[in-house]
Amino acid sequence: MSDWLISLLQEMGATLRLPVSFVVIEFVGTFAFALSGIRLASAKHFDIFGAWIVGMATAIGGGTLRDFMLGVNPFWMTNGIYFICCALAVVWVMAFGKYLIRQSNTWFIFDTIGLALFNVIGIEKTLNMGFPYWTAITMGSITGAAGGVIRDVFINEVPLIFRKEIYALACVAGGIVYMLCNMAGMSPEVNALLSIFTVMVMRILAVKYKWHLPILQGEEEK
Amino acid sequence: MSDWLISLLQEMGATLRLPVSFVVIEFVGTFAFALSGIRLASAKHFDIFGAWIVGMATAIGGGTLRDFMLGVNPFWMTNGIYFICCALAVVWVMAFGKYLIRQSNTWFIFDTIGLALFNVIGIEKTLNMGFPYWTAITMGSITGAAGGVIRDVFINEVPLIFRKEIYALACVAGGIVYMLCNMAGMSPEVNALLSIFTVMVMRILAVKYKWHLPILQGEEEK
Amino acid sequence: MSDWLISLLQEMGATLRLPVSFVVIEFVGTFAFALSGIRLASAKHFDIFGAWIVGMATAIGGGTLRDFMLGVNPFWMTNGIYFICCALAVVWVMAFGKYLIRQSNTWFIFDTIGLALFNVIGIEKTLNMGFPYWTAITMGSITGAAGGVIRDVFINEVPLIFRKEIYALACVAGGIVYMLCNMAGMSPEVNALLSIFTVMVMRILAVKYKWHLPILQGEEEK
Repeated sequence: MSDWLISLLQEMGATLRLPVSFVVIEFVGTFAFALSGIRLASAKHFDIFGAWIVGMATAIGGGTLRDFMLGVNPFWMTNGIYFICCALAVVWVMAFGKYLIRQSNTWFIFDTIGLALFNVIGIEKTLNMGFPYWTAITMGSITGAAGGVIRDVFINEVPLIFRKEIYALACVAGGIVYMLCNMAGMSPEVNALLSIFTVMVMRILAVKYKWHLPILQGEEEK
Repeated sequence: MSDWLISLLQEMGATLRLPVSFVVIEFVGTFAFALSGIRLASAKHFDIFGAWIVGMATAIGGGTLRDFMLGVNPFWMTNGIYFICCALAVVWVMAFGKYLIRQSNTWFIFDTIGLALFNVIGIEKTLNMGFPYWTAITMGSITGAAGGVIRDVFINEVPLIFRKEIYALACVAGGIVYMLCNMAGMSPEVNALLSIFTVMVMRILAVKYKWHLPILQGEEEK
Repeated sequence: MSDWLISLLQEMGATLRLPVSFVVIEFVGTFAFALSGIRLASAKHFDIFGAWIVGMATAIGGGTLRDFMLGVNPFWMTNGIYFICCALAVVWVMAFGKYLIRQSNTWFIFDTIGLALFNVIGIEKTLNMGFPYWTAITMGSITGAAGGVIRDVFINEVPLIFRKEIYALACVAGGIVYMLCNMAGMSPEVNALLSIFTVMVMRILAVKYKWHLPILQGEEEK
């Protein structure tokens, strides 16, 4: 890895107050999020520019909405790495499109790691600005889950996370673990790791055992 | 009602410069808005978490968009009562789902009160920040009506208020009444009450007599 | 033209640091953007208020999203001309609806001029706030193209620019030309004109020769 890349990663880590290893995870998580958007865009026959936009909306849309709410400039406006990451994801889909189904399990893991990490990033950024815990937990869930909602609005589908899968709820669980650890006086690193672990375990178990929340029944069927 | 609840309501009133009675109305209006989102979400078989999100988007989405435009943190970030109110609305739908159609008239009234009050809250917040009247009227309408647009985007329908019903236009009428009363030197309380009255009367008459605006005809039919 | 209108235009120009001729172009571009939204709204039988909202979302939605990202109040909050312009576009559609197809080429040109000008306005506003070139190019594209995405979300269609036409990409090309001219030390006026010329030529050629980007193929067809 070139010196340039390491210094870039360190700079990103300094901005986010995260160690370099987290920055690598963040890059992979962004890539996995973008992939999910680009694959759905390709199923709708978007062109490569449209697919790139949908990939970016999926990967950075949640953090952008969070930053609107926190009243700061979106995090990606001063760091081009996220755009490049999403462009690489478009190239990946063009090059390996037919192998992506076989890679599904791999990308599911990266997507889950991304979700868990984005959640912690959102929580820490919000707490650092002096908001209460429940606001931080909300912002963590928005960071992790809102990108997928924007993606589904762009491809004109009912957002998946409103109907299926434990997704935002895993973020909430991870946020509560973060809060409890923080209240117990643990170090930020331990808080983050336990929160990430919680989100990953909950999401993996939910998919494996097809857990889902109760579905509401429409009135017209009664 | 516990002391805790009264002091919470007074605090909310102080934040919004509204008397306690208005805060109670705001809570009921928020509940009614959330109900409309959750009922539509249940017709699309959303899970309870998705329904809660759609309920919140309906109830607090308009005020959130207004606060983005005014350049302040969304109003709900420092007061958890709105989240709790929307969660109670989910419980209400789960418990009384089959009676909701019979309650329709009741909730229509609360929804209309909510619309009228949200409109005034948006107008006053915008005027307090030094913007001109027409911007305040716009922000009032956004506070009242944008939540329903976000709700319909989330459930993947063409927004209802673009096609049917006098809804945002009632907000505009209420905003003009507020402006005229304010220019005439009336007290803020009277302005607010006359504006709320205008919105409610206009909306109730519009629904009762099926008033609607002229519909545009598409070119392809000519 | 009345003194009042000239002074209004000069004030708009002073705000945007643009000469009066640009302000006239901006008004016509806004009108053309609004027309595209209102025509699509009329095809979906929206009422006139709904059509006005969709027209405004198309015309000022991109600039609004840019201003959220830049952390400033949306540009239209202190200048009512944009609302009036969109209302005039509704009147135009109601009056000349059946001639609009014959006017298509004219409005295509105005729409393209609007796109090119909005792009430059977004670039200059972002550079003036001290952001790097690539952020400014992004903000230019958002100013030009995001309104059309919001329009398509509101009428519940898959956004057109994700599937067809060189649109946002023409903005990016215009942005790169602006950057290169600026780096070469040319005056802001020349930068702006060359950028506008680039966007217009690229979009006109793309439509004339039916250029489009490669379309991604969905996995399920393999």
